[in-house]
Amino acid sequence: MSEQAHKKVCLVIGVGDGVGAAIARAFALDGFETVITRRARNLPDLEAIAQGIRDQGGIVHARGVDARSEEETVALFEAIERDIGPIEVMVFNIGANVRFGIRETTARVFTKVWEMACFAGFLAGREAARVMVPRGRGTILFTGATASLRGREHFSAFAAAKSGLRAVAQSMARELGRQNIHVAHVVCDGSIDGVFSRENIPDIEQRVQEDRVLKPDDIALNYLALHHQKRSAWTHEMDLRPWSEPW
Amino acid sequence: MSEQAHKKVCLVIGVGDGVGAAIARAFALDGFETVITRRARNLPDLEAIAQGIRDQGGIVHARGVDARSEEETVALFEAIERDIGPIEVMVFNIGANVRFGIRETTARVFTKVWEMACFAGFLAGREAARVMVPRGRGTILFTGATASLRGREHFSAFAAAKSGLRAVAQSMARELGRQNIHVAHVVCDGSIDGVFSRENIPDIEQRVQEDRVLKPDDIALNYLALHHQKRSAWTHEMDLRPWSEPW
Amino acid sequence: MSEQAHKKVCLVIGVGDGVGAAIARAFALDGFETVITRRARNLPDLEAIAQGIRDQGGIVHARGVDARSEEETVALFEAIERDIGPIEVMVFNIGANVRFGIRETTARVFTKVWEMACFAGFLAGREAARVMVPRGRGTILFTGATASLRGREHFSAFAAAKSGLRAVAQSMARELGRQNIHVAHVVCDGSIDGVFSRENIPDIEQRVQEDRVLKPDDIALNYLALHHQKRSAWTHEMDLRPWSEPW
Amino acid sequence: MSEQAHKKVCLVIGVGDGVGAAIARAFALDGFETVITRRARNLPDLEAIAQGIRDQGGIVHARGVDARSEEETVALFEAIERDIGPIEVMVFNIGANVRFGIRETTARVFTKVWEMACFAGFLAGREAARVMVPRGRGTILFTGATASLRGREHFSAFAAAKSGLRAVAQSMARELGRQNIHVAHVVCDGSIDGVFSRENIPDIEQRVQEDRVLKPDDIALNYLALHHQKRSAWTHEMDLRPWSEPW
Repeated sequence: MSEQAHKKVCLVIGVGDGVGAAIARAFALDGFETVITRRARNLPDLEAIAQGIRDQGGIVHARGVDARSEEETVALFEAIERDIGPIEVMVFNIGANVRFGIRETTARVFTKVWEMACFAGFLAGREAARVMVPRGRGTILFTGATASLRGREHFSAFAAAKSGLRAVAQSMARELGRQNIHVAHVVCDGSIDGVFSRENIPDIEQRVQEDRVLKPDDIALNYLALHHQKRSAWTHEMDLRPWSEPW
Repeated sequence: MSEQAHKKVCLVIGVGDGVGAAIARAFALDGFETVITRRARNLPDLEAIAQGIRDQGGIVHARGVDARSEEETVALFEAIERDIGPIEVMVFNIGANVRFGIRETTARVFTKVWEMACFAGFLAGREAARVMVPRGRGTILFTGATASLRGREHFSAFAAAKSGLRAVAQSMARELGRQNIHVAHVVCDGSIDGVFSRENIPDIEQRVQEDRVLKPDDIALNYLALHHQKRSAWTHEMDLRPWSEPW
Repeated sequence: MSEQAHKKVCLVIGVGDGVGAAIARAFALDGFETVITRRARNLPDLEAIAQGIRDQGGIVHARGVDARSEEETVALFEAIERDIGPIEVMVFNIGANVRFGIRETTARVFTKVWEMACFAGFLAGREAARVMVPRGRGTILFTGATASLRGREHFSAFAAAKSGLRAVAQSMARELGRQNIHVAHVVCDGSIDGVFSRENIPDIEQRVQEDRVLKPDDIALNYLALHHQKRSAWTHEMDLRPWSEPW
Repeated sequence: MSEQAHKKVCLVIGVGDGVGAAIARAFALDGFETVITRRARNLPDLEAIAQGIRDQGGIVHARGVDARSEEETVALFEAIERDIGPIEVMVFNIGANVRFGIRETTARVFTKVWEMACFAGFLAGREAARVMVPRGRGTILFTGATASLRGREHFSAFAAAKSGLRAVAQSMARELGRQNIHVAHVVCDGSIDGVFSRENIPDIEQRVQEDRVLKPDDIALNYLALHHQKRSAWTHEMDLRPWSEPW
């Protein structure tokens, strides 16, 4: 058996924030050779994240990819399968939160949010299915948000995209489960510690210290746990909320 | 007061099947000057529907419009408001049901279904909001389907688009309710009597006779009832199913 | 054909507040011989409601019944079927809203709320099914609340009872639909004008005037509309909210 | 510090089937001194389960308790807190699945199922809250089923009870989360390997071998994982389904 056959590869699409990086780190340190992607223009940042995980002992590859491009996504999967190894786990983690009243939501915004948060997820999920179904195994994980469950005022674009992504995840779970492929949707239901919340939540330091915001590493543990679930008892949707978050 | 000020105008976008025609008929016979739209290439069919309603006493205008085009949609609303009268009711009724396994779903199909069933609904809803909010009144109705509520295997494209449309409807309902604009989403949960079911359901005649499929005219009564609800008790989502439909 | 055979009877269980009275009035004025019930100790109040509807031209009978008692409920249905006519519509409208932290909720409160809001609804629904199934027609309507959809803090007793009632309604809808019996659950999602809100909402007068609370008569119209729906397009759940209610 | 202060105690109420036993085993082998309960008349069976776990190295106490009795439940919590140690984890695992058409559901059945599956869960949850809130920590887990999410025909009693229990869990999660108490509801969505399925599913052996039914030990791992979740990212509801279960 070749060395490559023993490899377990994890692909994390959308490592633009702390959550993607934390998920990549969790799988890398669990023994997965991990590929992380982000738009090419942010490749230096992505490479820095990869180096950080390597410093902790993980094997990580950074790839600049526009996940909204069918061509680039197809090429990404082909290259990984050919050059690195069989993708065992695919995590789709691109968000695109924007806030606009319905009358102020431009067609461009509505479309771009959908391309990033829904269409790219469909492409990634489909490509994962294409390589996993013939092998009869694999795990496909999607990151959701509160807006995945219901539309809120001023969030029509984001809610439409995230609800659409959830529907893709549900359709895939029903179709691929019996192919021994585990598809799950994780609803991150609250603020997440990261660049955005550090800039926008005044008491963020205290909230982080008291675990009052979602911490990327704590989120990531659940993705890893989903992958390790026994197949007699697979979860297809779970929420994650800080303990003190009001509903 | 000018004559136009007394007019009540209803716009039904997506009169490509029996449901759209039935909704248009119901509002036209209730006294609304009604505008029905469909893609320009099907204008002759649309004009025939309009004539049928005129023969029953309604005032109806047929317009060939690509609802996925922001430009055409904006122009449609402007033309109606200028030439016909203030839009009191807007019904978005475009479906786009397709069935493909996830691996066989092309990017083109996924995108086109979304453009028709979700993006066009956003455009129509936004334009309706733009004319209704300044007047502080109006009704916006969206046609949903079983796939609006959950993803099913082989329906990722349709479920993603319909779930996205539902999220738009929910976001708009929350935002526009307090502006005195009633937004509702109707889940047509079952087969509908029409060209598609007549061609695909073997015992369709008997099923129609026994009310075992959704009948467009019966559906339409509920759209009219939603518009006539008192504002102290507005419905934002309701399902419609044939009595004998198994769950 | 006997005179009784032409009668349409509507039974409204739980006419303790404005909503039950309004529903009874709506059906009575629509031509139903209507029976209204409430606990025997409140029979004088109930009789006054009945007289008010009679003054408007309806035929109404007031019955003091403990809806939590299987014996009394069975006897009620038997007496109506024997002495008045076949029950065409049964509305279950008993609420029992209480607010307690989980640690302060006594077993007695938890049980009583369930007996009134869930168990009594099961009994009424079952007895209605027993008389309607052999006739192959009928309408069974349940009044729900926000708490029917999810548990909120301090409302475990109420949410458990109302969620239970909703599950009964769903089970019955699935089982009885194919028997031509229409079962629906109406979610009254907001404050309702009545004794409780008049005593507890400071600006209630203004809110009523501006339709900012659910008005019993406006609610009632929807119960009547549900009964009159064509069976090719039955609704099984709908929400009712004031236009300006924040979500 | 006394020895007792270092103890972690887990209480599993409803160890009548394989799931309760597996959960108890998982926590016991994770280092919890574990108390398992069941009705007194089945105490010999319960003691056998306890012995089995002891043989694997766990510390387990078997207690005969009628979980529907407020008095016995209160006494159980008092005795554990006094004699064994502070309850860190409480798992409520009583089911009561029955199948009856609505007209054949007796008041007695409807009530008993509710007492076992809902009322007893409220009692256990409340008593757990009473001992945990003053300590500012703890985990409360409820076992749910498909019927927790929606009513199905012929399952009105079970669905009403399980939906009620879910509402209790939701109410408690919202109220107790900010007290640092983690409340979660696990939806076991499929057949479970056990006495019932061994007697009722013809090809059960093969299904077990192929992981096509929920295996108690695989379920139990998830309860343990919920307890070990970091509090910045707590799950409040998750489903568990066999990989090949059709939806």
